[in-house]
Amino acid sequence: MNMNLKEKIRVIDGFPKEGISFKDITTLLNDKDAYRHAVDLMVEDLKDKNVTAIAAPEARGFLFGSAVAYALGIRFIPVRKPGKLPGEVSDYSYDLEYGTDKLEVHKDAIQQGDRIAIVDDLLATGGTVNAVAKLVEKNGGEIAAMEFVIELTELGGREKNKNYYINTLVEYEV
Amino acid sequence: MNMNLKEKIRVIDGFPKEGISFKDITTLLNDKDAYRHAVDLMVEDLKDKNVTAIAAPEARGFLFGSAVAYALGIRFIPVRKPGKLPGEVSDYSYDLEYGTDKLEVHKDAIQQGDRIAIVDDLLATGGTVNAVAKLVEKNGGEIAAMEFVIELTELGGREKNKNYYINTLVEYEV
Repeated sequence: MNMNLKEKIRVIDGFPKEGISFKDITTLLNDKDAYRHAVDLMVEDLKDKNVTAIAAPEARGFLFGSAVAYALGIRFIPVRKPGKLPGEVSDYSYDLEYGTDKLEVHKDAIQQGDRIAIVDDLLATGGTVNAVAKLVEKNGGEIAAMEFVIELTELGGREKNKNYYINTLVEYEV
Repeated sequence: MNMNLKEKIRVIDGFPKEGISFKDITTLLNDKDAYRHAVDLMVEDLKDKNVTAIAAPEARGFLFGSAVAYALGIRFIPVRKPGKLPGEVSDYSYDLEYGTDKLEVHKDAIQQGDRIAIVDDLLATGGTVNAVAKLVEKNGGEIAAMEFVIELTELGGREKNKNYYINTLVEYEV
C-alpha cells in the first residue's frame, strides 16, 4: 500500500502549551487503513532483526507497541511511570527541560539475551527512549531497534541515540 | 490452542494498598503465546458483531485494545484522563469509592452509526467501562460489546453494565 501517513496526523498548535505544534496521532488511529499500515511498516522493518520482545513507554507507546508485538508474535514489556507496576521494579531517572523524570520496568521482565525493540509514537529530544534503552540494558537486554511513528528532526533525538538503530515513519522539523 | 490464561497472570497481594489482591497482567503480556491467545479470543468473540471501532481507556486498556483493533482491521479510539487529548473533547464524570473521576474522548472520534467494542484488562466494579459506554453513546455510537481479560465476579461490574454484552477470559471472585 502506498499511503501518505503524514496527512492522517492532525497538527494542533498551542497544545499542551503555547509555542508547541502538537502532532496528534489519534486521527491516524481513527483511520483503519492508516493505523494498520503504520503498524505493518514497523513489523516489516523488524522482521529480520531477531527481536524477542517489544518494550514501550506508557501511554502512547502502548498504542503501537502492543499491536507490533501481537503481529510479530513476541512478548510485550510495558515501561511505566513510578508506582504503576505492582512487582519489584528497576528504575532509571533522566533529565527533562525542567527537573527530572523516572521510568520503571519489572525486574523480571527482561531475559538474558533478549533483543528488544522499543516502540513509541514520537522521537523528539530522545530523552524518553534513551531512558527506556538504559533500563533495558541495565537489566541484561540488548536494543535491536527503536521504532517511531513520528520524528521531529530538529530536536536532536537521533543524535542523542546515535548508538542505536532508529526507524521513523513520518518526519517534521519540529 | 487450549491454554490456561489464569496461570499466566501473577497475583500480588497488598498492591496498590493493603487488602487488595492485584491481578498483574504484565506476566501474561510477557508470554508470547498467552498474549497472542488472549487477543485472539477477543477477536474471535467480536468477529460476528459488526464492530466498526475499538474504544479503550488508558493505560492498560491500550495494551489489549490496540492489538484487537489491529487484528480486526478496524479503528482505535483512545479514552483518556483529563488534559491528555489535544483536540476538542467530550467528557463524562463518574463516582469512585471516594470522590469522582473523569474520562475524555475526542468529539470527532465517534461516527454516527458506529458499533463500538470497549476493551480493557479488568472488570471490577464496572465504573470505568460504564463511563466509557456513556461517553460513546453521548457521542452517537452504540456499544456492540465489552471485552475484558479478567473479571472479578463478586464486585458487581456485570450487574452495573447489565444492558451490555460482556465477554471475559479469566475469572476471580475478588
